[in-house]
Amino acid sequence: MSTAARRTRLVHELADRDLAGLFVTTLVNVRYLTGFTGSNGALFVPTHGDAVFLTDGRYRDQAADELPDLEHVITRDLLGGMAERTAEGTYGIESHTLSVDAHARLAELLPTTTLRSGGRVVESLREVKDDVEVEALRSACDISTRALEQVLAGPLVGRTERQVARDLENAMLDLGAEAIGFDTILASGPHTAIPHHSPTDRVLATGDLLKADFGARVDGYHADCTRTVVLGRADDWQREVYAAVRESQAAGLELLRDGVDVSASDAAARGSLEAAGWLHAFTTGLGHGVGLEIHEDPFVSGSHTGKLTSRTVLTMEPGIYVPGRGGVRIEDTVLVTAGAPEVLTTMTKDLLEIG
Amino acid sequence: MSTAARRTRLVHELADRDLAGLFVTTLVNVRYLTGFTGSNGALFVPTHGDAVFLTDGRYRDQAADELPDLEHVITRDLLGGMAERTAEGTYGIESHTLSVDAHARLAELLPTTTLRSGGRVVESLREVKDDVEVEALRSACDISTRALEQVLAGPLVGRTERQVARDLENAMLDLGAEAIGFDTILASGPHTAIPHHSPTDRVLATGDLLKADFGARVDGYHADCTRTVVLGRADDWQREVYAAVRESQAAGLELLRDGVDVSASDAAARGSLEAAGWLHAFTTGLGHGVGLEIHEDPFVSGSHTGKLTSRTVLTMEPGIYVPGRGGVRIEDTVLVTAGAPEVLTTMTKDLLEIG
Repeated sequence: MSTAARRTRLVHELADRDLAGLFVTTLVNVRYLTGFTGSNGALFVPTHGDAVFLTDGRYRDQAADELPDLEHVITRDLLGGMAERTAEGTYGIESHTLSVDAHARLAELLPTTTLRSGGRVVESLREVKDDVEVEALRSACDISTRALEQVLAGPLVGRTERQVARDLENAMLDLGAEAIGFDTILASGPHTAIPHHSPTDRVLATGDLLKADFGARVDGYHADCTRTVVLGRADDWQREVYAAVRESQAAGLELLRDGVDVSASDAAARGSLEAAGWLHAFTTGLGHGVGLEIHEDPFVSGSHTGKLTSRTVLTMEPGIYVPGRGGVRIEDTVLVTAGAPEVLTTMTKDLLEIG
Repeated sequence: MSTAARRTRLVHELADRDLAGLFVTTLVNVRYLTGFTGSNGALFVPTHGDAVFLTDGRYRDQAADELPDLEHVITRDLLGGMAERTAEGTYGIESHTLSVDAHARLAELLPTTTLRSGGRVVESLREVKDDVEVEALRSACDISTRALEQVLAGPLVGRTERQVARDLENAMLDLGAEAIGFDTILASGPHTAIPHHSPTDRVLATGDLLKADFGARVDGYHADCTRTVVLGRADDWQREVYAAVRESQAAGLELLRDGVDVSASDAAARGSLEAAGWLHAFTTGLGHGVGLEIHEDPFVSGSHTGKLTSRTVLTMEPGIYVPGRGGVRIEDTVLVTAGAPEVLTTMTKDLLEIG
């Protein structure tokens, strides 16, 4: 879908909400609606008339290249530039990200205009991915899988968490990632008990669990994948915990499908962990949308509700974390369909015993 | 200075503003005041009584490690957790970053409490760096300088912008950077005319200008350095433009000192470019504070005012950008003192002709 088609969809949503337009100030939403990849920009989308994009002088040429079909205004005052285009009526703001100060300034500039929350209207459009987006996500996931396979070929024992994380990141870049999607989590031994562990100089040893949570970025889209392996032969405890997480993930994935409430998947994954006696050790969220942001709508939990739709891309990442001892997480990025979801991070989930 | 001492300074500032406390919701400010390095956290600082830190379950162990001297609350509802600690009175919010929705929720939770903007009070404290911060910045700048020296040793001609950017980033990591501070700008030939250019597969050629804007991160602190060199022998135009930028930077640096208004430096750097006939081609800001953020207070421009103080760390980065032809930028990270600023990015500024 072209960015122009995305803007047309947004205009329909705005009209449904009786809004005369939307001030798009969330940078990632600006990117979704325009293709602009710089670090400062805004978009004013009136329900009637043409959208206008605003950025500062650093991005004059880039805006001309990336947004040939959109009028753009070069200014350091994005809010002021948008306010100039506003007529009377009721306009939407992105109240979940717009700061209190920016809101106050807009209100001051527009004394006869009503400003009202537009909700997460662009985020909601972003939940369902179009073909271009699915291709980018598929590519990012494929690069991530191949990079991990390369790194797990070794050597591992004797190297540090930091070194192995670097290897993984360099492999992703060599395989065509435009960037690393997020700070790589590379944990070994007792560090695997920490859900979000930053790599250290700890040296990998035989008998360790090794957990990698990582992903490549392609055209702005993120892969998010976690695998946990054993260095050497797995002991009984490692096998038990691994099996419990794998079963939980399978139970959660089974219900991640078109038309099913997002909370059903959460209940299934938790139910599986509870039956295995490990629910107390699962301390994070179960999953989240992934796309232009590494964490985006929808979120998978007991408190989030709403039916899933085909072409939504989500992670599913149950885990068990036992402080002082270790932990296991298995995470895939998957594409929701009418049936079982398509797993984009195709790396094996069999328990690997390496070296 | 300990984080406890920083919180004590903040409490004095709050008392001066007649605030009973501050809801610190800007993550980088939370880090400054606590040492917490995770991705989700908030801090409630009452003027009387002890501060309390809040984060979610993923960071339970990390918070215990990093913040042994602070009470911490594990919750997914940071705003709700802070509201519980609030008495009647007037409390400050970080209105420049707090979202409209988060503000509305706080106001709803606290019907008898007055919420008022605390301004950029923590950012203002952060402007003047303590010894620990200066050491981290010095280290980040030193690593950055040495990495660029390594990469400029070549080979360069025949390689792509993307490859050279990777080399530079790997060199910084090898030299001890904890991370790359920001997306490396590596531009060659006509691409140097784009102030913020993302590296491409363009192959470097003899006769090119080559511009690198890059920096290492150490303990959360960023270096920010730009150098522009010529591959082969510089032509007259390249020499002229380079000399104009270098003179402009020297003029700006000369006035970057304790007690001088920040706009004086801007006027001097611009005056120098104007005298050389190149002011029209300088399209970006002149400089900015740098520390836990790559761009932070104070900003150097004609419209920003305020006297500089010793121990403020700033960049100074004039440039000339001629679309279709090329451009030059020279940028240092410097420490303000009573005299000439101390340049932390010690890489030579003589025009290098390489290869």
